[in-house]
Amino acid sequence: MLGGIKRFLIGYPLPTYQLAERRLNKIRALASFSPDALSSIAYANQEIYLGLVVAGSAGLALSWPIGLAITGLMLLVALSYYQTVHAYTDGGGSYAVARENLGVLPGLLTAASLMLGYLLTAAVSLTAGVAAIASAYPSLWSYRVSLALVFLLIIALVNLRGAREAGTGMSVPVYLFVFTYLAMIVYGVAKALHEGPGAPTAAPPAMQPLTILLILHAFSAGCTALTGIESISNGVPIFKPPESKNAGQTLIVMALLMGVLFLGSLGLTNYLGVVAGPQETILSALARRLLGSGPAYVAVQVTTLLILVVAANTSFAGFPRLSAILAADGYMPRQLTALGDRLSLDNGILLLTAGTGGLIVVFGGDSHALIPLFAVGVFLAFTMSQVGMVVHWWRARTEGWAWKACINGIGALMTGMTVVIIGVSRFTDGAWIVIVLIPLSLGVFLPIRSHYRRVGQQLSLRGLAAPLRPVTALRVVVPVSGVHRGIVDALNFARTITPDVTAVYIELEPGAGERIRQEWSQRWPDIPLVIVPSPYRSIIRPLLDFLDETDAQHRDGQLSVVVLPELVPAKWWQGLLHNQTAWLLKAALLYSRRHLGFQRVIIDVPFHLQR
Amino acid sequence: MLGGIKRFLIGYPLPTYQLAERRLNKIRALASFSPDALSSIAYANQEIYLGLVVAGSAGLALSWPIGLAITGLMLLVALSYYQTVHAYTDGGGSYAVARENLGVLPGLLTAASLMLGYLLTAAVSLTAGVAAIASAYPSLWSYRVSLALVFLLIIALVNLRGAREAGTGMSVPVYLFVFTYLAMIVYGVAKALHEGPGAPTAAPPAMQPLTILLILHAFSAGCTALTGIESISNGVPIFKPPESKNAGQTLIVMALLMGVLFLGSLGLTNYLGVVAGPQETILSALARRLLGSGPAYVAVQVTTLLILVVAANTSFAGFPRLSAILAADGYMPRQLTALGDRLSLDNGILLLTAGTGGLIVVFGGDSHALIPLFAVGVFLAFTMSQVGMVVHWWRARTEGWAWKACINGIGALMTGMTVVIIGVSRFTDGAWIVIVLIPLSLGVFLPIRSHYRRVGQQLSLRGLAAPLRPVTALRVVVPVSGVHRGIVDALNFARTITPDVTAVYIELEPGAGERIRQEWSQRWPDIPLVIVPSPYRSIIRPLLDFLDETDAQHRDGQLSVVVLPELVPAKWWQGLLHNQTAWLLKAALLYSRRHLGFQRVIIDVPFHLQR
Repeated sequence: MLGGIKRFLIGYPLPTYQLAERRLNKIRALASFSPDALSSIAYANQEIYLGLVVAGSAGLALSWPIGLAITGLMLLVALSYYQTVHAYTDGGGSYAVARENLGVLPGLLTAASLMLGYLLTAAVSLTAGVAAIASAYPSLWSYRVSLALVFLLIIALVNLRGAREAGTGMSVPVYLFVFTYLAMIVYGVAKALHEGPGAPTAAPPAMQPLTILLILHAFSAGCTALTGIESISNGVPIFKPPESKNAGQTLIVMALLMGVLFLGSLGLTNYLGVVAGPQETILSALARRLLGSGPAYVAVQVTTLLILVVAANTSFAGFPRLSAILAADGYMPRQLTALGDRLSLDNGILLLTAGTGGLIVVFGGDSHALIPLFAVGVFLAFTMSQVGMVVHWWRARTEGWAWKACINGIGALMTGMTVVIIGVSRFTDGAWIVIVLIPLSLGVFLPIRSHYRRVGQQLSLRGLAAPLRPVTALRVVVPVSGVHRGIVDALNFARTITPDVTAVYIELEPGAGERIRQEWSQRWPDIPLVIVPSPYRSIIRPLLDFLDETDAQHRDGQLSVVVLPELVPAKWWQGLLHNQTAWLLKAALLYSRRHLGFQRVIIDVPFHLQR
Repeated sequence: MLGGIKRFLIGYPLPTYQLAERRLNKIRALASFSPDALSSIAYANQEIYLGLVVAGSAGLALSWPIGLAITGLMLLVALSYYQTVHAYTDGGGSYAVARENLGVLPGLLTAASLMLGYLLTAAVSLTAGVAAIASAYPSLWSYRVSLALVFLLIIALVNLRGAREAGTGMSVPVYLFVFTYLAMIVYGVAKALHEGPGAPTAAPPAMQPLTILLILHAFSAGCTALTGIESISNGVPIFKPPESKNAGQTLIVMALLMGVLFLGSLGLTNYLGVVAGPQETILSALARRLLGSGPAYVAVQVTTLLILVVAANTSFAGFPRLSAILAADGYMPRQLTALGDRLSLDNGILLLTAGTGGLIVVFGGDSHALIPLFAVGVFLAFTMSQVGMVVHWWRARTEGWAWKACINGIGALMTGMTVVIIGVSRFTDGAWIVIVLIPLSLGVFLPIRSHYRRVGQQLSLRGLAAPLRPVTALRVVVPVSGVHRGIVDALNFARTITPDVTAVYIELEPGAGERIRQEWSQRWPDIPLVIVPSPYRSIIRPLLDFLDETDAQHRDGQLSVVVLPELVPAKWWQGLLHNQTAWLLKAALLYSRRHLGFQRVIIDVPFHLQR
């Protein structure tokens, strides 16, 4: 039945040979990789507004120059990643660049910031999307966490169905968003030229003085407009060939769209003097100002919700891919490289879903609370990646390397300065969490790597004698719970493999052992039965002690083999009605490390109950 | 480390032979069994007040006659249980009486109502206790759920440490409560006689007319004053010998204390015209009226909290005991009969803790919401038990049987009428939940019983030939994940028990099998290796299919034995870095029911990683 539900939700498994075909063309790839980048105008506008509105109309007047600075930074970073897409085609993106050019540790730090970034992209996008629709329908405001979680689960399911389906399903909202906002901006510009600038009287009074820190605060918050711009560089292999060319062109189109949408919406807000109410986003206020509160306005909000939900999907393209690359390098659990039924990286998808859900719940579904964490991680990864590119050009010395290194160098400088600005101005707002977590990630990556290395050494056959050496005389111990049908098969099997069989009964109730012994000696007089009293009513501990003592007495350098009779009930709920002693015993025997260098063989002889 | 924490919280294990010594004397037994009964005045007073206050001062004037009626019922029920304590000494209480005299199904229905009653006693007592202290400190009002859960955990821990410790730890608050309230009532009566009746002007205006239904409603809610009166009859064996005599005397003392405290507090409230504010209990209002808001008042509230917390302990004495009796009869999982480290019924304690915690959370920590469920279950059990006693006397015909049957018969009639009153007047308030759940419980008890019966039949050795029949020629299959050190021991063991060994490799990546085959043929040319391609990247399914096909080809009536090489990591977290294929495979092999009547033997050969 569980299998049936899985089939219904995820679809039938696909064979491995279909893997090579599952590539995306540019239209689908833009839809798959750009939603985060494009939709980031939703929260970037909001953050700039929230950062400046406390300084009143004088503050809000600064949104235009801040927006221009951010757009300049955006184009610079885009240019830098355009170069990455052509230089690195395996999809590792910033991690591959930083690792190859700066070394393992900077690479891992970059990977950690990217992974945190993916988690935060999903969480911020979903919560901002829910805020967009709650601006239109304020009664939804108190259900923000639940709504965000529902959308998260839908995206996870769509991704578990496989990458191409994801690309298709996501295309519609992305292009709908692009055309809706472009149309609204064109209409807004025409209306603004016709009506002239908005009334400055609408602006709220200043609550704080317009300090440099306040301006830097607003700038750093607005830098979240750049998030998602790197995603294409992490997904080059999913493009149809020629991968680099297609990815590069898609990146340029995306960056231009980002710039137009960001500057357009910010400029109109500024020019028309739009301000937002308490439970409303600034983009919602702009749309309401231009379109009224009718169906056109609601359509814009729904479109904003949809692209933000789809934006969370960028993480579902990037996070599992990066996890798999890290896992292949041995820094993450290997299961993350496993392809699921639909050839998607299911374990990475599940990990991302759990992490994002946790962030949404912990931060109460409020994107504003998540932004400081988000911005630090993203810009740290930008900086590392671009410093890596500078080193790359310096080493490669290909045609025009100096010019290319110069572009990446300016990018690195600007994004590095932004990291410092964000880290300082938003430290106590939550940026500190990321600043602490990223170095700590090395405490995860490095022990995993050294574990796999040590396992490899221990599994090596080098120096081991080639011929197998079968054991000479097996000693078998059969723990029994009484004289009944369920142990007959186990005794038979034990007798099959050796004549040296001992049964052992752990006596929990005083006197029970004697009754068992009488029945036993009548039925199986040739198999010795040992009664071990257990005054503390534990089964496992006395049995382990008995095994150790027996082995110590024999001094043959061997451990007794345990043949376990196990009752297997017919239905799962019947398992709750039995003690599960066999299961506990197996776990105890398997993980008992009393005998370093020796392993105790456990033989499970099931007795299936029929009803 | 986990073991150390457990030792610290629970204590060192006690040997089984100490079981007989762990009895309680009367002083301790009263403390252990009476808190629920005595403390029920806290919520019974409150419920009568809430039921009548909506009809204004005319309604409140009825609290005295209602209280007298309830006290009469209380003495009748106590007399009835006094007879039970002497007639049934094994501690089954109402369940034993109903089962023996009325039959299995009525017995089980009684048991279900008792078990629900225990859960609700714990939940109602804890929430009422928290309400008592929150009356004194209103800032605690919003933490009611968390506070109730903290107290629940403390009681559970104390009980896991063993019954005598429970008796000792609980004695102080119980006797403190008894003396505090007796002193307050004596002082209150003196003060009331001095001052005369309270001002009727203090009563709030009537919101509803004083209908018969409203009076019945208040009466039925007030009947919760009787809860806990039966607990001693369920715990006779825990008394020091002579058990029945000691239990009966304790029961009489308890019933008298209940009557004095209940009528005393209710009468004073009535006479003085006390009314309560919105976030205050009526007992708190009475104490404040008599003692002011100083330290004396706070001491009364703390004492009330303590006894109610301890009252939840009545359930921890009764619920695990009743569960164990049901389990011994085969109607509940057998694990409930197991004695824990400290000779307490740990599984029953854990089950009760989980259920009570669930009730507290679901009902938002509000005792008023839980009361209707509580009252139905308790009075249903009272009625069943007393009808059973009537049948008992009828059959026994011992000296004075007619007189005894008459007492129990009147008790049965009165409590039966109360069940009908509660069921009708509180049906939509939650009583329906219990009315539905109790019959449904048969759908749990009966399938469990028939499962154990069928298991017993299937485990019978009757008709089975006595000599063991070892298997003639074993066939072994060893699933391998590659050519490495981790499979060497498994191959050695397989060769030890049979010459017929086949290795099988499930090929997930096309081409991997060929590489393995080359290495294999160099190292172990005499063991055949089969490569099974798995286009859908599953390991389990192709392996199960391979085993089935092999067995079908051999037609020797046997199933291949599976020898599983299993890597065991050195630390628990390293397990997360491996695929756990061996574990999944074992589960699939054990629970695969493709071969009815056959069992596939699974041999686990661990390879312990050293670091």
